[in-house]
Amino acid sequence: MKIVIVGGVAAGMSAATRLRRLAEDAEILVLEAGDHVSYANCGLPYYAGGVIEDREALLLQTPVSLASRFRLDVRVRNRVTAVDAAAHKLTVRDLGTGDEYAETYDRLVLSPGARPVVPPVPGIERALVLRDVADADRLVAAIDGTADGGVAGAEPARTAVVIGGGLVGLEVVENLVRRGLAVTLVELADQVLPPLDPELAVRIRDELESHGVDVRTSTQVSAVTSTTAVLSDASGAEVGDVPADLVVAAVGVRPDTELAVLAGATLGPRGGVMVDEDLRTSVPDVFAVGDAVVKRDALAAPGEPEPFALIPLANLANRHGRHVADVILGRTGMRPSVGTAVVGVFGLTAASVGRNEKRLRAEGRHYRAIHTHPSQHAGYYPGASPLALKLLVDPDTDLILGAQAVGRDGVDKRIDVLATAMAGGLTASDLADLELAYAPAYGSAKDPVNMLGYVADNLRTGDTRSVQWHELDDLVSGGATLVDVRTPAEHARGTVEAVVDGAPSRARNVPLDELRARAHDEIPAGTPVVVHCQVGQRGHTAARLLTQLGYDVRNLDGGYLTWRDAARAAVSGRHAQGR
Amino acid sequence: MKIVIVGGVAAGMSAATRLRRLAEDAEILVLEAGDHVSYANCGLPYYAGGVIEDREALLLQTPVSLASRFRLDVRVRNRVTAVDAAAHKLTVRDLGTGDEYAETYDRLVLSPGARPVVPPVPGIERALVLRDVADADRLVAAIDGTADGGVAGAEPARTAVVIGGGLVGLEVVENLVRRGLAVTLVELADQVLPPLDPELAVRIRDELESHGVDVRTSTQVSAVTSTTAVLSDASGAEVGDVPADLVVAAVGVRPDTELAVLAGATLGPRGGVMVDEDLRTSVPDVFAVGDAVVKRDALAAPGEPEPFALIPLANLANRHGRHVADVILGRTGMRPSVGTAVVGVFGLTAASVGRNEKRLRAEGRHYRAIHTHPSQHAGYYPGASPLALKLLVDPDTDLILGAQAVGRDGVDKRIDVLATAMAGGLTASDLADLELAYAPAYGSAKDPVNMLGYVADNLRTGDTRSVQWHELDDLVSGGATLVDVRTPAEHARGTVEAVVDGAPSRARNVPLDELRARAHDEIPAGTPVVVHCQVGQRGHTAARLLTQLGYDVRNLDGGYLTWRDAARAAVSGRHAQGR
Repeated sequence: MKIVIVGGVAAGMSAATRLRRLAEDAEILVLEAGDHVSYANCGLPYYAGGVIEDREALLLQTPVSLASRFRLDVRVRNRVTAVDAAAHKLTVRDLGTGDEYAETYDRLVLSPGARPVVPPVPGIERALVLRDVADADRLVAAIDGTADGGVAGAEPARTAVVIGGGLVGLEVVENLVRRGLAVTLVELADQVLPPLDPELAVRIRDELESHGVDVRTSTQVSAVTSTTAVLSDASGAEVGDVPADLVVAAVGVRPDTELAVLAGATLGPRGGVMVDEDLRTSVPDVFAVGDAVVKRDALAAPGEPEPFALIPLANLANRHGRHVADVILGRTGMRPSVGTAVVGVFGLTAASVGRNEKRLRAEGRHYRAIHTHPSQHAGYYPGASPLALKLLVDPDTDLILGAQAVGRDGVDKRIDVLATAMAGGLTASDLADLELAYAPAYGSAKDPVNMLGYVADNLRTGDTRSVQWHELDDLVSGGATLVDVRTPAEHARGTVEAVVDGAPSRARNVPLDELRARAHDEIPAGTPVVVHCQVGQRGHTAARLLTQLGYDVRNLDGGYLTWRDAARAAVSGRHAQGR
Repeated sequence: MKIVIVGGVAAGMSAATRLRRLAEDAEILVLEAGDHVSYANCGLPYYAGGVIEDREALLLQTPVSLASRFRLDVRVRNRVTAVDAAAHKLTVRDLGTGDEYAETYDRLVLSPGARPVVPPVPGIERALVLRDVADADRLVAAIDGTADGGVAGAEPARTAVVIGGGLVGLEVVENLVRRGLAVTLVELADQVLPPLDPELAVRIRDELESHGVDVRTSTQVSAVTSTTAVLSDASGAEVGDVPADLVVAAVGVRPDTELAVLAGATLGPRGGVMVDEDLRTSVPDVFAVGDAVVKRDALAAPGEPEPFALIPLANLANRHGRHVADVILGRTGMRPSVGTAVVGVFGLTAASVGRNEKRLRAEGRHYRAIHTHPSQHAGYYPGASPLALKLLVDPDTDLILGAQAVGRDGVDKRIDVLATAMAGGLTASDLADLELAYAPAYGSAKDPVNMLGYVADNLRTGDTRSVQWHELDDLVSGGATLVDVRTPAEHARGTVEAVVDGAPSRARNVPLDELRARAHDEIPAGTPVVVHCQVGQRGHTAARLLTQLGYDVRNLDGGYLTWRDAARAAVSGRHAQGR
């Protein structure tokens, strides 16, 4: 059997090596239009930033090493220009010589990846992107001032504009700052890091700003000049310009479907190549894998007619490579995908899995949100630092729909545990019972993930009812009493306010330890009560107490911290800031 | 309802506060014989070591704080001396006044914990243990030389002997070294850290020795003098003595069943209090929780007549507290337990979940072992460091029976993910498909946990067969050819040897990248082949290649590194070393 794989990174190369391990007699040809195969694309921003010093470290395999170990015929700078699927034939151009030649295949695997999107604005030609090693070389040259054209002069760059505040954009920003550049981050959405909900993403914005990054949300680049980027607000009105010795476009990627279209394959939702559970396209004997294809969505609502998602992540691409090899050799199928991602932003880490609240709301789904702010390990052990955790739960089934975390330590661990719980079909309440490794330097006897389970279980059983920050105004306007059960000192440092008839209405302060004695005198009976504390935990105790004293009580989910973060997210995200 | 809880730490106090949150009208009395309730017992070694500087940080709650917040009647230094279960009555002694008084209960919860075991040898009276805050105070005083008796003089201690190399013993050793003491660790087993199998535990031994700890395995303390500890080998023959300004006994704990016996409750296997799924003892209205009770064993073999285990861990104790409160208020039941633990040893972390191989072998169970040595994050990103991972799998069901990990970073994360996978009923092969958060500083596109899944899947399907280090001698003695597929440079630095007829037989070296060309000339056909590389991954590729070339092949699981660690573990564990 002759298998031709087009695209020699991540999914493509995983497929090739797996195929060889399973089938020594197969003929395996890998065609790659670029200069390199099997390079560490997730390392490119860190090479640009000097964190990874050795360029060779990015090149995990070469055509020579792959030939000797796996007997693969790997041809770089060879582009497929035509596909005759009926005849199982390809036309290939050698980009070095310009010659074209014909190839045949029994099975064709398309692994073209995704292309960076570049916003179509005047002057954008000098914007750099970061997809492959050549892109990284160009970025390094631009930073060093050794570029041979297209950037602003032969001086080292001092200023940069990064367009796009997603995973790659943030990694680029961090590494440009590391190289000493003054960086402006421009994001059209009203928050950075769209996989997170705004009340968590605001912490990433803080971290960026504390490292001197000029963060412009609700803003777009409307033109690029030779030395600046011109900014506009979301409506297109100009709000000023910022210096830009270099410009990097990191607004996202689009499935590279050129080859699939040449082959006559059907495209699916959101522009990805449509594949079945076994990664087959609509064309016989043609498979597609990786960032180019739509994934089955593990979290689609029941009955959703198009349960597919685009998830351009390296872990899924590598899985695809292995699975397509298995399928070609007569094995089967892929699990649906949830999407798990992590990014470091200076000292902070943000990670997420599955759906966020924004998306669930947009889909009209039933969900329950839980916010907590635990320490990553025992508070009494040195180095404790807070996590902001968010869990999204299906209230009908108690299954986990998604999770997010931001903090300085222990973030990836909790998201990986939650991704694993989702894969295992555990309910949110089941998280309470997970046996997680505990010693004071690593966690808590009740780990933050267990605590999410406790909260979820209390909500599931109805022992506690919660209210979200965005529901507060309506409740208090409707007559609910807002009670801060923290200490007077905490209350004085900052207080939850509901907006009633356009004016702020502050919580009254009845500390938890005095609540039993003071409730009847100070909290009106017969109207609903909303209690809050700093993070939600004392609020839960207060809610339980007041419920048993006969009140109709809700606890403000995530407490003052979530409310404050949400308020700050709303303010910082609302307007493009001109200068 | 009047609920009396005996024992005010971990499980007991979790029960008390949960009961109050659910039942404002319950009468809740907590009786604690010691001086403190709700203290951070897992922090005690670190307080002794000066890591936790503030003693107050250990005292998470006090009787006063618990009274004001939870309306709990908490009485420290009050010991229950008799239980009349038929009459639902207790006799309590106030240890301050010496007075005895009667109490009644509707429900009684026993949370006495476990007692440190002290080996019954001459002079052991001056050995210290580490169970509660008073013990920690005594240990600090002994280190500082401010103890008022019972230790060797008023000078600061310079030498220490720690008896027992389990979780607590290792934490004590680390903290005594941190305080500048010369420490001898004495362990009767042939390895430190019994939850791990020996080929992983040997790395912890290395770490201890590299920090100057004198590690004596297969050794016991047979007597304690005023300045030394006398050591014997496992058979009891004296092998010398070591200086010991202070002696700490950390050989393990035994369920404290005194109270349960007073109440007439049945004991279960291994001396724990027997409880049902709802934490009920055999005595009506008497419950027991935490380290004192037997847990249902999630990993018991099907049909096992006594599927119970002792698992004295804080995470389970806290869970018990919450569950017993729920049960008393008419809710139900505990999941079975697997036991998940972690310990830091200087710069290394060791963690485990579920069964180890020693235990599975002792139980006569079917299992499959998998060893890997991946980096904790992408190898091309600075700071990559190796993990030693071990997975134990039921070959009939592919379910996970246990896992262990040792390394400098990322250990607790992988064990927590595996513990969660076990709770979710995922198979070992399912691990391949977990979507775990990846960026180069956090993991790999194929995370170490995914790689375990790949290996497990290859074994499950029969694509690869593996051989364990301890099976090597028999295979090679039976005529198998042992082939090292690493590079000649790696081969020269250290080689796997099988023992054949009492003499070492070294692997022959055929590098993987030359194997395809050289196999037929250099590897005899018709007899089995065992291939190995450094960690098992190239060995897998070699095994697949040779299998397809017609050989009968097995891959040495974990490669040279596991074989070397196992060999070192055997040597270091075999004999008590006299001086």
